[in-house]
Amino acid sequence: MADSKQQHLINDYRINSADIDGFDKRYRTHFINSLSGFKSANLVGTISAAGVPNLAIVNSVFHLGAAPPLMGMITRSNSVRRDTAENIKQTGYFTLNHVNRHIYQQAHQTSARYAAEVNEFEAVGLTEEYSETIPAPYVAESAIRIGLKVEEVKPIEINKTEFIIGRIVEITAPKDCVENDGYINVEAAGTICVSSLDAYHQTSRIDRLSYAKPDLPLSSLN
Amino acid sequence: MADSKQQHLINDYRINSADIDGFDKRYRTHFINSLSGFKSANLVGTISAAGVPNLAIVNSVFHLGAAPPLMGMITRSNSVRRDTAENIKQTGYFTLNHVNRHIYQQAHQTSARYAAEVNEFEAVGLTEEYSETIPAPYVAESAIRIGLKVEEVKPIEINKTEFIIGRIVEITAPKDCVENDGYINVEAAGTICVSSLDAYHQTSRIDRLSYAKPDLPLSSLN
Repeated sequence: MADSKQQHLINDYRINSADIDGFDKRYRTHFINSLSGFKSANLVGTISAAGVPNLAIVNSVFHLGAAPPLMGMITRSNSVRRDTAENIKQTGYFTLNHVNRHIYQQAHQTSARYAAEVNEFEAVGLTEEYSETIPAPYVAESAIRIGLKVEEVKPIEINKTEFIIGRIVEITAPKDCVENDGYINVEAAGTICVSSLDAYHQTSRIDRLSYAKPDLPLSSLN
Repeated sequence: MADSKQQHLINDYRINSADIDGFDKRYRTHFINSLSGFKSANLVGTISAAGVPNLAIVNSVFHLGAAPPLMGMITRSNSVRRDTAENIKQTGYFTLNHVNRHIYQQAHQTSARYAAEVNEFEAVGLTEEYSETIPAPYVAESAIRIGLKVEEVKPIEINKTEFIIGRIVEITAPKDCVENDGYINVEAAGTICVSSLDAYHQTSRIDRLSYAKPDLPLSSLN
């Protein structure tokens, strides 16, 4: 890599804080949203106190811990509609439903600003499904569906967003996608991912690698 | 979808809280880590107060906001080594470097529990690179590199992890991957993603979709 610095000078776009401040709003939103790399694509299902189901795509869901089983999600005006966050706080439950290649257009359409009394399942053409355990609606067309109970809502003061912590209370996944060691082959289930705000990607597995230890070579688990 | 319920009964694996509690530790870790879908794959670069560089793979980085430009990251014993979190708190800076298909094995190897005095760049065969702005080391082999200043560290009491908020202060990306509207084509930059703990995936773009509005059909931005 002796020449790496020189190559970078020629090929790279270098941006600092002042440059970011000078970007126009839309450019900045696309650019900054690209930086974390690939994001998960989930549909969050909720129901209002008045009984109106709500569905919204969210790209900010992440694993928070396995014991207890927790997932995190950031709400913000761009990605999670206010009525979703309101429903979560009022009812204490939500579902997460993996977006797959058959429903990515309907999933993206849920990001439109529908009026609060609109049922987005009906508006975009997806099917509500309910379990006996929680009140929030699932997406029948999604292969991997997770039911969560709200554990905590932490305010993030710096940009007036919220960090929602959910405890996983039920999961549905295709039997043939759950491998012997507990790994769920989300790729086989058709789950896709997102980059920035609006780009949808399918995946192809390169490898599964063994647990890393110092001074031991990795092996492939494929 | 009239038959969806019946199909689910035959084809689906249905798990509840009691089932999760009964899983053995390793199975549970693989299973629960799979549930968020695809994750970003980043190498976090830090340096200790004593000057020892540290490099660790992290799958819990997410976009937090564009204005101000913020990224979030969850530290936990499994995914972010304690010395990474210590370095971040002591020096106030860290870098995020996208994992690409050429370096995923070295990236995975950084998850081994090396002693605190070991420089993981040297241990796994990646190249340190420094800017004039921040003290934390970048990974020269990574095409998209982000420098961050720590804004806040929030404790997550429920599972004794930490939520690190970083403000983006500099970015390097290949010129030909930054599109006219600010979208960074991370796929063209070779960035890959992760599922569960150990599976690495390359991507292929399905589509970019237009900004969604009620009652307007989506169009493709490809």
